[in-house]
Amino acid sequence: MTELNRYRVSHQSLIDVCTSLFAENGVPLEDAKLTAEALVDADLHGVSSHGVIRAGIYIKRLQEGIVRQKPDLKIVKETDNTVVLDGGNGLGQVVSNQAMELAIQKAQDHNVGIVSAKNSNHFGTASYWATKALEHDMIGIAASNVPPLMPPPSGAAARIGNNPLSIAVPADRVKPIVLDMATSVVALGKVLLAKSRGENVPDGWAVDKHGQATNRPEEILNGGYLLPVGGPKGYGLAAIIDILTGVLNEGAFGSDVHSMYKDFERPANIGHFFMAINLRSFIEPALFRKSVDLYAQYMKNTPCAPGVSEIFLPGEIEALNYERNLQEGVILPKSLVDELVQYGQQVGISDERLQELTQGPLA
Amino acid sequence: MTELNRYRVSHQSLIDVCTSLFAENGVPLEDAKLTAEALVDADLHGVSSHGVIRAGIYIKRLQEGIVRQKPDLKIVKETDNTVVLDGGNGLGQVVSNQAMELAIQKAQDHNVGIVSAKNSNHFGTASYWATKALEHDMIGIAASNVPPLMPPPSGAAARIGNNPLSIAVPADRVKPIVLDMATSVVALGKVLLAKSRGENVPDGWAVDKHGQATNRPEEILNGGYLLPVGGPKGYGLAAIIDILTGVLNEGAFGSDVHSMYKDFERPANIGHFFMAINLRSFIEPALFRKSVDLYAQYMKNTPCAPGVSEIFLPGEIEALNYERNLQEGVILPKSLVDELVQYGQQVGISDERLQELTQGPLA
Repeated sequence: MTELNRYRVSHQSLIDVCTSLFAENGVPLEDAKLTAEALVDADLHGVSSHGVIRAGIYIKRLQEGIVRQKPDLKIVKETDNTVVLDGGNGLGQVVSNQAMELAIQKAQDHNVGIVSAKNSNHFGTASYWATKALEHDMIGIAASNVPPLMPPPSGAAARIGNNPLSIAVPADRVKPIVLDMATSVVALGKVLLAKSRGENVPDGWAVDKHGQATNRPEEILNGGYLLPVGGPKGYGLAAIIDILTGVLNEGAFGSDVHSMYKDFERPANIGHFFMAINLRSFIEPALFRKSVDLYAQYMKNTPCAPGVSEIFLPGEIEALNYERNLQEGVILPKSLVDELVQYGQQVGISDERLQELTQGPLA
Repeated sequence: MTELNRYRVSHQSLIDVCTSLFAENGVPLEDAKLTAEALVDADLHGVSSHGVIRAGIYIKRLQEGIVRQKPDLKIVKETDNTVVLDGGNGLGQVVSNQAMELAIQKAQDHNVGIVSAKNSNHFGTASYWATKALEHDMIGIAASNVPPLMPPPSGAAARIGNNPLSIAVPADRVKPIVLDMATSVVALGKVLLAKSRGENVPDGWAVDKHGQATNRPEEILNGGYLLPVGGPKGYGLAAIIDILTGVLNEGAFGSDVHSMYKDFERPANIGHFFMAINLRSFIEPALFRKSVDLYAQYMKNTPCAPGVSEIFLPGEIEALNYERNLQEGVILPKSLVDELVQYGQQVGISDERLQELTQGPLA
């Protein structure tokens, strides 16, 4: 794709338009806004595979009635520091927002909070939810199942999702340390992005439907499989996440978790797992934050391999992207902006407001 | 190494001799026994890289006074469901045993228990501690830091341990599902084992001290570095474990964590993190266990890749090893048995008892 096929769009315009898109499709304004903010946050962090590229499919599923516009979120079981939450087939962001708030509240009062949520949908980036804990002087953890995409080692069929995991740790002056990983070699979103750009993917990411290596996104997306990172390691981590997000809450697992792209008959049945750990229960938070700074500095001071000028902490590159994109705007493919404009016209968003998406310079 | 250089040793003989070895080197009998049991459990599971191969270095450090024979374990900070434990520089197994018991007790009374332990030593396999939770109808988690072994991505010096993580989940009729992974492509123990067998290691495991690829265990152990699994993923997970095991408890991290093989001047300063999650707080445990069985069956039923006859769940191969080795005995290299015999003679264990190690058939 040439540079001229991309727009720079201000994050505020993106949030405004996406909020309206969800709201005009029946989602209560507050829920529409938090969903839009979560998606745009991914674009701001440079994780565009999990950003507004997902808005179209969310809208389609809302329109088809496969995702509830006004879900009935219910606490199924609750203790001082645990909750099983039924998401009522609402947008994943709506469910996750309430779930992570509950986890933080539990940790505020009882040191640790765990919320396992079922009957939900795609929740965007795991790190968006994990990092919600940081301002409360807590460590945040978020994980989700996703539909089966990967074979177990030596298997020849998709049986397990490349379930994402994020763990976020607050710092003082340096950026927070944020792990956010899919349990495949790469996330499916990166394959979708390559497809949207018309590019091939590198060796080793995935196999086709026959279990054979391929570089073509179409062959991966059409019945092929992503590979677990580190073989049994990524497989094991993904299986544990399946259990925390789909078994612990009496939710769905395995083939009962459905693809939002392929299945328009049944709810996706996604489950999530959230945890907040209150630093105060272990250590003075200010001391913890300063020690994390020291840890980060220790890591930054690693001698570089030839040709490398800087070592980054987990999540640091994304945090730097965020700062830059907040100022300069998010870079989006023209095809994606066109799609958002079409959805906007469909629900009667004014041309004037939609033009905000295309008024930035071509990047 | 030829087959004739290996003994089959009964696990009970191994536990008895190792218990005596530790006890005769000043460790209270109960602590000596639990340490021996933990090491032999690794051998029983076929994880011989973390088994009695470590007894020699433990003994050497006890003799040199770098590990405390009778540590003063102290609870530094405690809430309803969290503990910061100072291990008093005791054997890692002694510290971990108390820490995991505390985590389980907290989870019994308050749904979730977390214990972060500092001033400890090598704790063997992470899964040994995580699986302690299973009989209590809990999910168990165990992690540890280890001395810096890996460079961060693009780095040219060791800055981060290949910190292990285990998460164990109980099942009903099938084996429990047990993730146990080091955050490097492989564990250092596998390099040590290759060295003890005089074998090279496969491509991609590690680099030498110049950051160049090598297959020679000696070059890896002599200033080289293991590589993180999945690049930024293994690096990120290892960094988070560093923080949970070395920062959260005001313990040691980075270059303040020392090698038990290279540094005989200072305590190793190892830290651990343990968690127990009470199933009852979320779901009826019997239902959970049955659902895990269904999950395992679903995975076992995956079509196999050509030439493969069976799909395994995480931890299943190790559990099958355990059952077999419990009956048939543990296979150990002759050189390792000879070393144990030498240590035994050093502290006056009778020849009759030491002969138990070599009375099994050569394997």
